[in-house]
Amino acid sequence: MLDVTTPTALLRQYLQVRKWTESICRPLQKEDYVVQPVEDVSPPKWHLGHTTWFFETMVLKKFLAGYVEFDPMFNFVFNSYYESLGARVIRTNRGNLSRPTVDEIYKYRKYVDSAMEQLLAQPLPAEAATLLTLGCQHEQQHQELLWTDIKFILGNNPLFPPYDTEEQPQPRPAAAMKFINMEGGVYEIGFSGGGFCYDNELDRHKVYLEPYAIADRPVTNGEFLAFMDAGGYKEFSYWHAEGWDWVKRDQVHAPMYWHKEDGRWMTYTLQGVQPVEPDEPLCHISFYEAAAFAAWKGMRLPTEFEWEAAAHLFDWGRRWEWTESAYLPYPGFERVAGPVGEYNGKFMVNQKVLRGASDFTPEGHSRHTYRNFFHPHLRWQLTGIRLAKTIKP
Amino acid sequence: MLDVTTPTALLRQYLQVRKWTESICRPLQKEDYVVQPVEDVSPPKWHLGHTTWFFETMVLKKFLAGYVEFDPMFNFVFNSYYESLGARVIRTNRGNLSRPTVDEIYKYRKYVDSAMEQLLAQPLPAEAATLLTLGCQHEQQHQELLWTDIKFILGNNPLFPPYDTEEQPQPRPAAAMKFINMEGGVYEIGFSGGGFCYDNELDRHKVYLEPYAIADRPVTNGEFLAFMDAGGYKEFSYWHAEGWDWVKRDQVHAPMYWHKEDGRWMTYTLQGVQPVEPDEPLCHISFYEAAAFAAWKGMRLPTEFEWEAAAHLFDWGRRWEWTESAYLPYPGFERVAGPVGEYNGKFMVNQKVLRGASDFTPEGHSRHTYRNFFHPHLRWQLTGIRLAKTIKP
Amino acid sequence: MLDVTTPTALLRQYLQVRKWTESICRPLQKEDYVVQPVEDVSPPKWHLGHTTWFFETMVLKKFLAGYVEFDPMFNFVFNSYYESLGARVIRTNRGNLSRPTVDEIYKYRKYVDSAMEQLLAQPLPAEAATLLTLGCQHEQQHQELLWTDIKFILGNNPLFPPYDTEEQPQPRPAAAMKFINMEGGVYEIGFSGGGFCYDNELDRHKVYLEPYAIADRPVTNGEFLAFMDAGGYKEFSYWHAEGWDWVKRDQVHAPMYWHKEDGRWMTYTLQGVQPVEPDEPLCHISFYEAAAFAAWKGMRLPTEFEWEAAAHLFDWGRRWEWTESAYLPYPGFERVAGPVGEYNGKFMVNQKVLRGASDFTPEGHSRHTYRNFFHPHLRWQLTGIRLAKTIKP
Amino acid sequence: MLDVTTPTALLRQYLQVRKWTESICRPLQKEDYVVQPVEDVSPPKWHLGHTTWFFETMVLKKFLAGYVEFDPMFNFVFNSYYESLGARVIRTNRGNLSRPTVDEIYKYRKYVDSAMEQLLAQPLPAEAATLLTLGCQHEQQHQELLWTDIKFILGNNPLFPPYDTEEQPQPRPAAAMKFINMEGGVYEIGFSGGGFCYDNELDRHKVYLEPYAIADRPVTNGEFLAFMDAGGYKEFSYWHAEGWDWVKRDQVHAPMYWHKEDGRWMTYTLQGVQPVEPDEPLCHISFYEAAAFAAWKGMRLPTEFEWEAAAHLFDWGRRWEWTESAYLPYPGFERVAGPVGEYNGKFMVNQKVLRGASDFTPEGHSRHTYRNFFHPHLRWQLTGIRLAKTIKP
Repeated sequence: MLDVTTPTALLRQYLQVRKWTESICRPLQKEDYVVQPVEDVSPPKWHLGHTTWFFETMVLKKFLAGYVEFDPMFNFVFNSYYESLGARVIRTNRGNLSRPTVDEIYKYRKYVDSAMEQLLAQPLPAEAATLLTLGCQHEQQHQELLWTDIKFILGNNPLFPPYDTEEQPQPRPAAAMKFINMEGGVYEIGFSGGGFCYDNELDRHKVYLEPYAIADRPVTNGEFLAFMDAGGYKEFSYWHAEGWDWVKRDQVHAPMYWHKEDGRWMTYTLQGVQPVEPDEPLCHISFYEAAAFAAWKGMRLPTEFEWEAAAHLFDWGRRWEWTESAYLPYPGFERVAGPVGEYNGKFMVNQKVLRGASDFTPEGHSRHTYRNFFHPHLRWQLTGIRLAKTIKP
Repeated sequence: MLDVTTPTALLRQYLQVRKWTESICRPLQKEDYVVQPVEDVSPPKWHLGHTTWFFETMVLKKFLAGYVEFDPMFNFVFNSYYESLGARVIRTNRGNLSRPTVDEIYKYRKYVDSAMEQLLAQPLPAEAATLLTLGCQHEQQHQELLWTDIKFILGNNPLFPPYDTEEQPQPRPAAAMKFINMEGGVYEIGFSGGGFCYDNELDRHKVYLEPYAIADRPVTNGEFLAFMDAGGYKEFSYWHAEGWDWVKRDQVHAPMYWHKEDGRWMTYTLQGVQPVEPDEPLCHISFYEAAAFAAWKGMRLPTEFEWEAAAHLFDWGRRWEWTESAYLPYPGFERVAGPVGEYNGKFMVNQKVLRGASDFTPEGHSRHTYRNFFHPHLRWQLTGIRLAKTIKP
Repeated sequence: MLDVTTPTALLRQYLQVRKWTESICRPLQKEDYVVQPVEDVSPPKWHLGHTTWFFETMVLKKFLAGYVEFDPMFNFVFNSYYESLGARVIRTNRGNLSRPTVDEIYKYRKYVDSAMEQLLAQPLPAEAATLLTLGCQHEQQHQELLWTDIKFILGNNPLFPPYDTEEQPQPRPAAAMKFINMEGGVYEIGFSGGGFCYDNELDRHKVYLEPYAIADRPVTNGEFLAFMDAGGYKEFSYWHAEGWDWVKRDQVHAPMYWHKEDGRWMTYTLQGVQPVEPDEPLCHISFYEAAAFAAWKGMRLPTEFEWEAAAHLFDWGRRWEWTESAYLPYPGFERVAGPVGEYNGKFMVNQKVLRGASDFTPEGHSRHTYRNFFHPHLRWQLTGIRLAKTIKP
Repeated sequence: MLDVTTPTALLRQYLQVRKWTESICRPLQKEDYVVQPVEDVSPPKWHLGHTTWFFETMVLKKFLAGYVEFDPMFNFVFNSYYESLGARVIRTNRGNLSRPTVDEIYKYRKYVDSAMEQLLAQPLPAEAATLLTLGCQHEQQHQELLWTDIKFILGNNPLFPPYDTEEQPQPRPAAAMKFINMEGGVYEIGFSGGGFCYDNELDRHKVYLEPYAIADRPVTNGEFLAFMDAGGYKEFSYWHAEGWDWVKRDQVHAPMYWHKEDGRWMTYTLQGVQPVEPDEPLCHISFYEAAAFAAWKGMRLPTEFEWEAAAHLFDWGRRWEWTESAYLPYPGFERVAGPVGEYNGKFMVNQKVLRGASDFTPEGHSRHTYRNFFHPHLRWQLTGIRLAKTIKP
């Protein structure tokens, strides 16, 4: 967990985050850095440049006297969505850019890192420390995207190249699913205490929850296979209307990366194509599939509030968990002025909240009040299901 | 308000609803019944047929012994979205069908009405009464859509034909906007008491609201003009990211139906093109515009719960009001089995709740627990704004 | 055939053409006049108005002193593609316009006809006579489109309403196909002699044709069924690359309007759904299908020059015949200045020439030098096949 | 020019072609090999692999006993459009593939080259020699595409990286355009004599040409600037209807790669951004622009036959020249069976013929009977204009 107060501590954290980003990319071939097979997936070299641009733009230009921009054109190339920071390459075009090259981007990273070291050799204004911390958190989010984007790039290549050949731990048998009963009443929701949090976790506020029960573990591949075998993808009554349209239009019939070989379900992993393990937590499903599975079970997904209120009572962290909740502002939420204010608030429509964390989340990055969010049809993140049900009086 | 218990009372209500539908269409030319200028707008003749098909399919086929279908093909032509009731003409194709003709559809209405009279000449099973009531509520919803669709059909025709020439009351000067302070605490939300309600208004349940203030009247055209004059459509910081994309892609710069003639804002009304009245409640805006306006004011939209908790303290009913809330199930909500279960639940993703009612809502159809819902970009309904703000301690 | 020189003769011809247009529409319901199920098909009421607008704009406004336009907005509504004549309703929107109504358009026709009678009560400048003749030819082209568009509107309605119930002649058994051998050498191509022709039939010029043979009759339904039974729609080697893409994308597997009922091929005709007659000339196929059929036969389509050079040796006129030729200008072709110059020349790219005429072509409208043209994927015209082959020395 | 008869000569030619391909790529960064910014542009690494796959599939597998495929999956990755050779990566997806890597593809090239050397160490069946020659011609076509695709990849990158810094010769002042008068009469068209030609250049046959005049040099940048200055992009009457739609939809207002800097027209060249040279031959225009320019001049484009008949009377070879002719089969043309038959014939619809050659055409690859073809809207090839006019008697 990032919790730093002195320039030295900040620098140590900064360098640690920066290094981890590069170590994620180490097994890649140069060609892997370049492609963007679908709009949501960005080229790894773009992630490397964009996270660096964030520090250059938000911190160095403002706080390091005499700082000289590495290349003014990079502002155009590596801006993601900050309208207040000028024109930018549109998202669908990132995979069309062969330049700057990977080597140039690593040079850019070095250049910025060395300027940051210079900056952190002296006492730092509080605002700079805040922005630097935000920049580290931001880069950690892109670390997770790097993993999921690399997986997509390799896992959708007809040659199915493995990312590495590191041996994976044998999955343990899943225990029977149990439900935790939660009483109705007023709960406190949102971040409190010290340390970093995003603006979307605030204000801490009260919600009233009706009595409910929530599963003590996520749904497994084996449990989802039972849904598939029962014809779950063919029975509209389990689906939202737009989920059903999505199933038919895209001919969805299994989680992402799954395909059948000789009658056996296989899936792409970072170590290449492997059999689907029935005892592993399910992932790579859309919100629509999560909701349909729950409907088939006669249950539902938890709201994000139900999830948070009970999170101290179950293990979480191996998969992001779709909730029923839409991504909306908490009472008292306010966008701050300027580019930092574009971080969260402007996305608060038509997305769903996910809670938890995944194997790809950097250590210490998430917490039980953390609100992740994606559009309901997306599946390239490590997204899974935790069941809930209302307890009727 | 529909509240009926005996066959005779039911029949009276039924006939009244059916008659009102036809009287809405009376000023139309036959050609107006046929067209579908955009996907969301259905041809009036489709509304006439679809509401009739609903009674035929849900009530007559099940409860009137010996009932003979008017035309089996109509099941295909007039099914809207009920997957459990078979194949159907897809929504974008409704405007391509010249047959059945308007005369045939009026014949169909007569045929079904007369069968309904026959059915209601005798005691009715409770389930039939429930479905008949649902059918009347359903037809009332389509009455509102008839108005908005007719307005769209005529208001987007380059000849701008008026629907009628009925004189409209002179708008009264709008009073200064005041804010009602609401205390924090637990409130009861959802329908209770007797009479009809939709399944999406249940279960009645508790919510905790932080202290807030809510406007005593909706925003006026004049107030929105101030936003426009201040460059509100050109400053991204007021907008959701996808709202901003929508503004740029569709080149939105004013509410729907507004255009400038000789420097003066005009709008299409059912009585033809008229000057925009500054004191009238604003309408025909998207959720994005509503939220951007509120952001410009340094305020926000109310949640549907804040709206409902305060609704007894202000006048409402001349415009549907966008809320911040996503359209989601209440605790304890369950889809019933069969086609009736497709009425609401399957739409509970990616839509926003609107509260209130409009000039086009049939009398007695809405109530303070009523949850209307549309996608955030839609503007052809009579949609407006009520402001709210959080009261920070 | 239109061949007129005096005002009286012109008027007689004019009135005859105008009357025939209306008699084509007589069996329609008002609703049939309004719809536009696909972009290429225009609403019948649009054809009625557009042909009238042509006379108003090209003739009356210029040559009838004191003529008062029926309605200035009609210029916008009924302009088809004349850029030089101002803004217009875009083609895909014609089916969205319920106004002007059918009755108003018939009133418009009467108004213009009566002005034309007034104009023709006196001697006419040559230019006016030329434009009037062009207007009549133009309206005849729209008569053919009226037939094909009405057939599309009714034949794509799920109720398959017949246009009329007129008994059709029994098809006669097709004679064996014979080939006419044509010698190599220089031939004269293009219009000559008196009477009307389009600018695209000029200049008459010489072409050199290598020796070839051309079929004495078009391909029949039965012959095409043999292609279908032989898997012609499944074997890419018969197809152009873009034809093959079209087959796969649109899942084409039979001529337009054909469908199988209980193992038997049926087709929609103006008298309703009927069995496919094996001895009838094939129609409603695209250029791609025509070329694929010919390739399967080990033959090819004739060029338009080969067709014209041999046209006096075979019967033609029951189906438009796709040729191998692209629609290009003849040597010496020149666009005239102004709107009349937009008639043909600007379409001379990416279209294919069809020769002949069809059952829907007004009597006397076509001739052996007439060049019809459509995009290669279109099938809603009465389009068929005549085979040809090169004679190798 | 490729003209080889013995295995040794064939091998020398083969190796020379293969080497040239690789030398074109030498200045590239690895990232430049990967991207596909638009559908028509293929990643350079795909060209390297595809040309190699052609020899492996058409020659080695059939004629080298015991040949072992380099990697069976490459058949899927590097097939371009040969339906008879199995499934393939669709064209729009080529830029999504990071693997095989550039290094692997160069390994593949070495592997195949060495197998080809082995094959050519012994006498060769005639069919193998024919296919090898076709393979060399095929690779030469891809050399030209490599140049144009590399130019597109670099020239559409916001950093405008130069391909190399080789000094270019100073353009010489263009001489005044003169017209060569050609007499009417029968001309022989198509390939004759020894050496290689494509099937689309056969059969040699007679055409009759009416008297015409053809320019002795192509149109220059300066001449096209005059068209632009005269409002040529804004006056529809010069344009084909679909050209005009293209201009408006894509907001075309200058040749590809042109943009204005401080009031001066600049263009991207392989040596970076340079001022537009008025005396250089114009290039990077669509057929629509070519035709509009000719119309503005009161002239037209030559047909491919007019071009060929006069080609010995003027210099050509610095730019491909759009002709008026559609790409259609010559009399007697026949597709051969099997994959080689897919080379040309299946593209003979909706494309335009270009004659000549360009600076990017490998030496000796083109000839005066050579028929190049592209869709009329494409501009990334070195496409220019030669004017013609009909001589009226």
